[in-house]
Amino acid sequence: MTGCRISRVVVTPVAFADPPLLNVVGVHQPFALRAVVEVHTDDGVLGLGEIYADETHWQRLEAVASALGGHDPYDLHGLRRLVAEVLAKGDGGAGASFGGMLDVDSAVDTVYSPFEVACLDIQGHRAGVPVSDLLGGAVRDAVPFSGYLFYKWAGHPGQADDAWGEALTPEGIVEQARRMVDGWGFGSLKLKGGVFAPEEECAAIEALREAFPGLPLRLDPNGAWTVPTSVDVARRLDGVVEYLEDPTPGIRGMAAVAAQVSVPLATNMCVIAMEHLPPAIARGAVQVVLSDHHLWGGLRASQLLGGIADVWGMGLSMHSNSHLGISLAAMVHLAAATPNLTYACDTHYPWKTEEVIAPGVLDFVDGAVRVPTTPGLGVTLDRDALGTLHEQYLGCGVRRREDTVYMRSIQPGFTPNTARW
Amino acid sequence: MTGCRISRVVVTPVAFADPPLLNVVGVHQPFALRAVVEVHTDDGVLGLGEIYADETHWQRLEAVASALGGHDPYDLHGLRRLVAEVLAKGDGGAGASFGGMLDVDSAVDTVYSPFEVACLDIQGHRAGVPVSDLLGGAVRDAVPFSGYLFYKWAGHPGQADDAWGEALTPEGIVEQARRMVDGWGFGSLKLKGGVFAPEEECAAIEALREAFPGLPLRLDPNGAWTVPTSVDVARRLDGVVEYLEDPTPGIRGMAAVAAQVSVPLATNMCVIAMEHLPPAIARGAVQVVLSDHHLWGGLRASQLLGGIADVWGMGLSMHSNSHLGISLAAMVHLAAATPNLTYACDTHYPWKTEEVIAPGVLDFVDGAVRVPTTPGLGVTLDRDALGTLHEQYLGCGVRRREDTVYMRSIQPGFTPNTARW
Repeated sequence: MTGCRISRVVVTPVAFADPPLLNVVGVHQPFALRAVVEVHTDDGVLGLGEIYADETHWQRLEAVASALGGHDPYDLHGLRRLVAEVLAKGDGGAGASFGGMLDVDSAVDTVYSPFEVACLDIQGHRAGVPVSDLLGGAVRDAVPFSGYLFYKWAGHPGQADDAWGEALTPEGIVEQARRMVDGWGFGSLKLKGGVFAPEEECAAIEALREAFPGLPLRLDPNGAWTVPTSVDVARRLDGVVEYLEDPTPGIRGMAAVAAQVSVPLATNMCVIAMEHLPPAIARGAVQVVLSDHHLWGGLRASQLLGGIADVWGMGLSMHSNSHLGISLAAMVHLAAATPNLTYACDTHYPWKTEEVIAPGVLDFVDGAVRVPTTPGLGVTLDRDALGTLHEQYLGCGVRRREDTVYMRSIQPGFTPNTARW
Repeated sequence: MTGCRISRVVVTPVAFADPPLLNVVGVHQPFALRAVVEVHTDDGVLGLGEIYADETHWQRLEAVASALGGHDPYDLHGLRRLVAEVLAKGDGGAGASFGGMLDVDSAVDTVYSPFEVACLDIQGHRAGVPVSDLLGGAVRDAVPFSGYLFYKWAGHPGQADDAWGEALTPEGIVEQARRMVDGWGFGSLKLKGGVFAPEEECAAIEALREAFPGLPLRLDPNGAWTVPTSVDVARRLDGVVEYLEDPTPGIRGMAAVAAQVSVPLATNMCVIAMEHLPPAIARGAVQVVLSDHHLWGGLRASQLLGGIADVWGMGLSMHSNSHLGISLAAMVHLAAATPNLTYACDTHYPWKTEEVIAPGVLDFVDGAVRVPTTPGLGVTLDRDALGTLHEQYLGCGVRRREDTVYMRSIQPGFTPNTARW
């Protein structure tokens, strides 16, 4: 076997239907955007990646794609350098905001990520081994996910109700959880909070505890609360939740809460890049860090994060944005090959009704996805479906994730709830 | 291509001639011991590894070797688990001392290391790519090393003088450095200290500075000094050395020195396992950490160390014990694929006159070794040489590294010098 080179890269933005899921900054738009990245080699191997497709992000992906010809898919350090160079030459690559909730100083990690995944997919195909093997081997045959519960409307305004219906009360959340658990077998549950007053969301968690006595629970208000409120909630839910995710914004605020409570604090907001780790660790701000290969710069960087969590004795869980099957496959391989990822991973997957990969590979059984054992990521593109979702992208009018803008089009006076309570 | 399994593992202890190099705990014995690990797969691929061969270590390697049949060479997490299980069943694997200078709580990392390297060698051969590609790709074509200077006797007592002759004074060290630089092209120099009083060793460094104005210098007394002495030396050599390695023992002592000086402190003594990083970082004890894939548990773990150094803004260099070409190849691939390894690596290689690999691959040019671009580590066993050095092992009588015992056989009143001055 000899070396190979990247011969062609195709980036396809797609849109898929997304229910009106509520959160601290607003509500999910009718369509979620993703970019499907195809990396072809001169010896006929295809690697796949998937990432955000806000318009700015898509343009950055295209700029990198057009610079990738001739690159060695094993040269990941060089790929990262190339991404940084391309971004520096273009719009500078500064700032990369995702839905108003997350922001990072540089887009290098998030632009690099889908290309790195695609290159690892290629490496796996060439070696005849699954991507998990390239990451040190799967330590589990199946990766458990948590059922991701959302407050939601019955349907998008002006549209028919979706299949899930309304969930705006503790009872509605329990009913939603029942469907998740019955249909998918989830063995743990996460509630996206920050929508209603803490009292109501605590009541929802307590209703879940009563309805599902054995299931680990999580609550994530996305920084909706002040430090004192966070302390109150943490004390109320002590022994009820396995962790409390981002009760309040910022490393300083989280550290202030952590100093006063015994419930582990998790984050996917104040620690979302390597540079956030030293101050967060020095202050004891978080006890569980959420990995996310899209945000942290690919699978290898996520393994570094996992290693750091292990060395410093922090818990490790996994974050999810709305995503399709290529991302799910990458998440499953990463999770399988990360020994200390002992919490069930987050996923928005059940909320999705459309897909770009051929079916049958990533089915949920008992709330877990079996780790593909075929070469690479183990998933193949359904090109008809890809074409359909690309057409949908072209026609849907959504060009970036704007939960707040969309919410204000429905409730003009809406204010994002960060640290409101 | 389908999967493969480990079919046969051979561990061969070898001994190679080693000059009487002086250090804080004594003097190198006439022979250095290494174990050559061969891992064969059922589809005919051979992977190589190399590590310490103190008798206890060799027995542990053999115990793992006999348990490896049928293991998947991609399953590195499983390999590590297996090593831990084998050690737990055997002598417990607790404590692993190397030459009286280093000690770790558990031998898992050091026993795992050569097998991990051999598995990566196999993976590289199967994929048709060099090991550096499996680590993210080489960011440099050649890896610079530092010339490693030692105080030494002219020869082992009772033997003829070796080719290097005596070096017990600043002039002798400068002469030795001249030969190293002229013969190998080294662009930086390290002096192993802890042998004479700090005043004399500072004089040697200053003589080197005068003789080689442009070359970065390092001094490593292996913890021979007290905190006040370390502070005095650090101030004297401020601007003269690029870093001072282990002036005093322990994280607490190093932190006390670091708080008072501006010369970066490096270590390969107080931070030699992942568990040492959090306290060392919290105390600001070290500014440069030395990786060593033998000690830190293989190439992937060394990449984790490199990532941690990068995230926390610590410098990264590389440590060396007396070693042969398999280790050198692994060091070169690791160093090539570690972007933030910006210091020249240490190596004992010039002190060695015997070898187990076929010649021609790892030659030094301008003090650097070109990164092999052939599959795997890029080195092949010279089986005649392996046989010869194994015979030498069997006959030489050395069964563990005992610098102090050997020194006392020559100077009965010798005391290891740790924190003596």
